[in-house]
Amino acid sequence: MQKRKPGNKTGQPIERRNIRLTVAFEGNAYHGWQIQHDSPTVQGYISDAIARITGEKVTLTGSGRTDAGVHARGLVANFLTGSRIPALQFVRALNGILPRDIRILSARQVTAGFHARRDAISKTYRYQIYLGRILPPHLMREYFHYPYRLDIRRMEIAARLFVGEHDFASFAKANASYSSTVRRIFSCSLRKKGNRLLLTVQGNGFLQHMVRNMAGTLVEVGKGSMTLEQFQDLFSKRDRKLAGFTAPASGLILLKVHYVSRPWPL
Amino acid sequence: MQKRKPGNKTGQPIERRNIRLTVAFEGNAYHGWQIQHDSPTVQGYISDAIARITGEKVTLTGSGRTDAGVHARGLVANFLTGSRIPALQFVRALNGILPRDIRILSARQVTAGFHARRDAISKTYRYQIYLGRILPPHLMREYFHYPYRLDIRRMEIAARLFVGEHDFASFAKANASYSSTVRRIFSCSLRKKGNRLLLTVQGNGFLQHMVRNMAGTLVEVGKGSMTLEQFQDLFSKRDRKLAGFTAPASGLILLKVHYVSRPWPL
Repeated sequence: MQKRKPGNKTGQPIERRNIRLTVAFEGNAYHGWQIQHDSPTVQGYISDAIARITGEKVTLTGSGRTDAGVHARGLVANFLTGSRIPALQFVRALNGILPRDIRILSARQVTAGFHARRDAISKTYRYQIYLGRILPPHLMREYFHYPYRLDIRRMEIAARLFVGEHDFASFAKANASYSSTVRRIFSCSLRKKGNRLLLTVQGNGFLQHMVRNMAGTLVEVGKGSMTLEQFQDLFSKRDRKLAGFTAPASGLILLKVHYVSRPWPL
Repeated sequence: MQKRKPGNKTGQPIERRNIRLTVAFEGNAYHGWQIQHDSPTVQGYISDAIARITGEKVTLTGSGRTDAGVHARGLVANFLTGSRIPALQFVRALNGILPRDIRILSARQVTAGFHARRDAISKTYRYQIYLGRILPPHLMREYFHYPYRLDIRRMEIAARLFVGEHDFASFAKANASYSSTVRRIFSCSLRKKGNRLLLTVQGNGFLQHMVRNMAGTLVEVGKGSMTLEQFQDLFSKRDRKLAGFTAPASGLILLKVHYVSRPWPL
């Protein structure tokens, strides 16, 4: 008797569909996106939930890793499945299993070639700082509390200098190895709303810790411990020790992953 | 040798100062404001923290009770202390001890007569409903998720009918006893911002569960299971069973407690 793979009841080759998910999560309880052996991760939870629904062990490809504690409003992931479950039904089915701090916002079938990481052309992150003396409890999970004087005007000038193609070696996690540390930043803006200071940055790619190091360096500029000249030199100096501190993960949110508008959906 | 009370080193009568606190908290982890024997409460945590700082067992008077799970942005409390600690210093000292989901926003000395509950002339609450199909994780602690169709226009009409002096017996927790169930609502408005529906209500006092029952009843009106005529009759019928369900505590926030502008501060 021939051994049959699950879902292949007709004996014909299994046609695997490519399902694209948009995912939001509050990162505080997780050791980031990527599966780790002993720690709870977002990829781990979603992969397990898919396995429970489809009976398959799938490879869930994320648009990129996120650090432990970082949040997401619109991370994109995809996986191949032989199950016949309608794509849309994954939203309700997965959310029924997942913890409340991980939500599947959408699910749809896309062409076989779609790859959540390789096809991403840019990402938008927001880094959130709370400047008031006391951090309100309802903001405590998504804001870095920095209750000290900052020169916002100088920070705005520095933020704009991030725009363009630069070598971000000074802003990359030390001791990490990259084929290239050059990245293009399409937009970078700083906005103050009351006591909230929001750094929004879109780029074609981000090195590990890059946005958090950009935020920490802007704080150094704002508090006056780094001049704008020193700031501009960071791109050519390529030295992590010269840039600012790594701002805490909990202030960082992956807002959106952008793809070319090729006709991915079927 | 005469026994001296703490702080009374000169042998003169102790002058106790009246300290007024403004408190914010995320209520999910607490069984409401009021001290209970076996459960964590906000009053319990703050009283304990004051005791650690002053060495005194104080009576902390809150502007009112809040249900388990309800949040606050500006609850007011006061206590009498014989300690010589400057009022302002209580902010930093208490926040250094308290968990991060309880914050003292301000502390100041007020005249001896100030009483946080008796002197409150009105309170403002907000009830938050999320209408979108999927509740985003960053909103999960402060929103009631109601992903069904609602007639917002009808709800707005009903919300305005709450304004004025009415008998709120139909909206009071069943089996509770009150000297009077008449309350005056100064303003009541419903505002829709995208998928967020916000009910803001200011009144001279609120019965237990009253705002949550008002929110639940408006939802009944919005989904069409209660007519506006039935809604208006609730004030005269005085029957809890006729009004809507009690909306979940986690959607409710005590925004502000209002006092007359008598010169409380010293």
